[in-house]
Amino acid sequence: MMLEQEIKIPASPAASYRIKIGTDILGSLWPQIEADFGKYSKFVVTDENVVSAGHLKKLLGQRDVPTFVISPAGETSKNIDTAISIIETMEQAYLGRDTLVVALGGGMVGDIAGFAAAVFKRGVPVIQIPTTTVAQADSSVGGKTGVDSSLSKNAFGVFWHPAAVYIDVATLATLDDRQFRAGLVESVKHAIVADSEYFDFLESNLDTVLERKPDVLEKVAHWNCKIKGNIVETDPGEQNFRRILNYGHTIGHAVEAASGFGLLHGEAVAIGIIAAGLIEIELQLAGPGGLERIRRILEKLNVPVTLPDDLADKDLIDLIKRDKKAVNKWPRFVLITEIGKVYRRNEQYAVEVAPDVVEKILDRL
Amino acid sequence: MMLEQEIKIPASPAASYRIKIGTDILGSLWPQIEADFGKYSKFVVTDENVVSAGHLKKLLGQRDVPTFVISPAGETSKNIDTAISIIETMEQAYLGRDTLVVALGGGMVGDIAGFAAAVFKRGVPVIQIPTTTVAQADSSVGGKTGVDSSLSKNAFGVFWHPAAVYIDVATLATLDDRQFRAGLVESVKHAIVADSEYFDFLESNLDTVLERKPDVLEKVAHWNCKIKGNIVETDPGEQNFRRILNYGHTIGHAVEAASGFGLLHGEAVAIGIIAAGLIEIELQLAGPGGLERIRRILEKLNVPVTLPDDLADKDLIDLIKRDKKAVNKWPRFVLITEIGKVYRRNEQYAVEVAPDVVEKILDRL
Repeated sequence: MMLEQEIKIPASPAASYRIKIGTDILGSLWPQIEADFGKYSKFVVTDENVVSAGHLKKLLGQRDVPTFVISPAGETSKNIDTAISIIETMEQAYLGRDTLVVALGGGMVGDIAGFAAAVFKRGVPVIQIPTTTVAQADSSVGGKTGVDSSLSKNAFGVFWHPAAVYIDVATLATLDDRQFRAGLVESVKHAIVADSEYFDFLESNLDTVLERKPDVLEKVAHWNCKIKGNIVETDPGEQNFRRILNYGHTIGHAVEAASGFGLLHGEAVAIGIIAAGLIEIELQLAGPGGLERIRRILEKLNVPVTLPDDLADKDLIDLIKRDKKAVNKWPRFVLITEIGKVYRRNEQYAVEVAPDVVEKILDRL
Repeated sequence: MMLEQEIKIPASPAASYRIKIGTDILGSLWPQIEADFGKYSKFVVTDENVVSAGHLKKLLGQRDVPTFVISPAGETSKNIDTAISIIETMEQAYLGRDTLVVALGGGMVGDIAGFAAAVFKRGVPVIQIPTTTVAQADSSVGGKTGVDSSLSKNAFGVFWHPAAVYIDVATLATLDDRQFRAGLVESVKHAIVADSEYFDFLESNLDTVLERKPDVLEKVAHWNCKIKGNIVETDPGEQNFRRILNYGHTIGHAVEAASGFGLLHGEAVAIGIIAAGLIEIELQLAGPGGLERIRRILEKLNVPVTLPDDLADKDLIDLIKRDKKAVNKWPRFVLITEIGKVYRRNEQYAVEVAPDVVEKILDRL
């Protein structure tokens, strides 16, 4: 005898969230959050750099809101242990499922806070208030969350869309120069994979961007959100098309891990972008012109475009194998044929590249 | 200037999964899993009790499949540290997103394995092969996953529906008597909240169930899956109706935690069910007749129906406050008006009960 029972999981309805972009909006944001999310208890996650920069005080004013300050700031804190500390702090504050997590900070804060919200008592909402170029361009939008294990990046994670995103480009004024420039690599990446017009814009306006003029920063933020939003709406669960956002990331993640997080994410991705360009030329998918333009803009951002001497190729191959997008133990790569156009093979946006080609390119980087 | 961008999250389509119930099907299951999930690498999560009982060997035969054996078996291992060890073992085996997690064991194994699958590299599928009465009745179906923090139960968790469930009631033959009986409490709970006919059936057939006759065990498993499936289909995300499955659990979870996991889940829930019954009588929602029938069936199962002396009421109140379903720091309770009928107030299935009523009942338990 074999009995059977089918369990039907109903469709979940379409949803949406708003991104608001402005200058100097942080100080007046809390009343709006209270208006939009009044029925929730609030819990803020931020880091010590954000506190030092005065952003937390600007957001909360005199309000007494339970807050977890991640220390030290930076990628080394983006791990499962920090996520556990956040969850246990929420428990100690007797917070329940009626909690709204407010992530105030860079990509690291957003990724951890998003993950903590997603797994806290089977999920509570999170809003993102990104304060760095990388978070405003990329990580605050799209619902990816993740923390690192002791072995690799984002070993733990879920898709968990934010309930709202608020971008105040004034927070970028206090960002240290290296962080500011490295974060712009994700903007360049958006242009490379999706929009040659945006690439032209970045090329023409890079000086103004680097001077941190609010008007142009708002435009950059808006352009990033439009590109990323369009991609995420098409493929929220990263089945195929969304993978184009991983351009430069397969090697980038490995380089970042190999550096012991001595390199910033954007710096590692810059190296990964150059590596992708070299692979494209090696495989005769693209001519050298696009890569030259990309290299120039990255050099102007003052991010590395070659592999630092101390990163042995052997480690990189091993780290590439641990990439979370690995299928059959060797990850696929996103490649372009020209700026704004991603290469597809058999309808796939992430394609196989033979390991010996990758090793050859790593030698040349 | 304030720029805005709306991100639309498309609806996710309806889905379904199959539960297959039989006797002695474990030995022939792997070829079916390979047929249904051929493109995935497999990773088995189980515990040392399941290995000792011979179930792992029966499932895998001579096949070499990477496996994580949780040790010690039991609720004390159901924590975030174990989940981390599982994830890192998967990484060390170079497993990627094309991995199928196979959970073979009781509720603890299913909850941890489901959680690990849900958060591994932002989610991989899991199939459940429950080997205990509690897991076959309840936890393998419905997509709840969770692990404990150092402070409370299921502090970490997500909803993650299994890709399939295979129930072999022959695995219950080797289950120790205490586990077997405690697990049947969830079956009694299903009957209490959803189906008085099923309650009659359990009352009439309890001796045969306790003799572990395969035919009646298959019927019990099927009845449980139908009841639970119907509830989960109506309200997969536990917005309201699904809460009826938490009958007896608000106090049950607190009792379980207070006992330092000296009590089994089902034993603690049995006490919680009696507590709910006493609250119903105290609030004049129900007469004493139903509670008497429930008490008799629980006594026949040989599970506790009174609070052990060593559990101080004070701790319980504090632990109840940490319940994950807490709204405004004090959780709601599921109550019935008669066997098979849940009480509703303002269309809500989980209702407020004043703390002093709960304290009074705890004194009386």
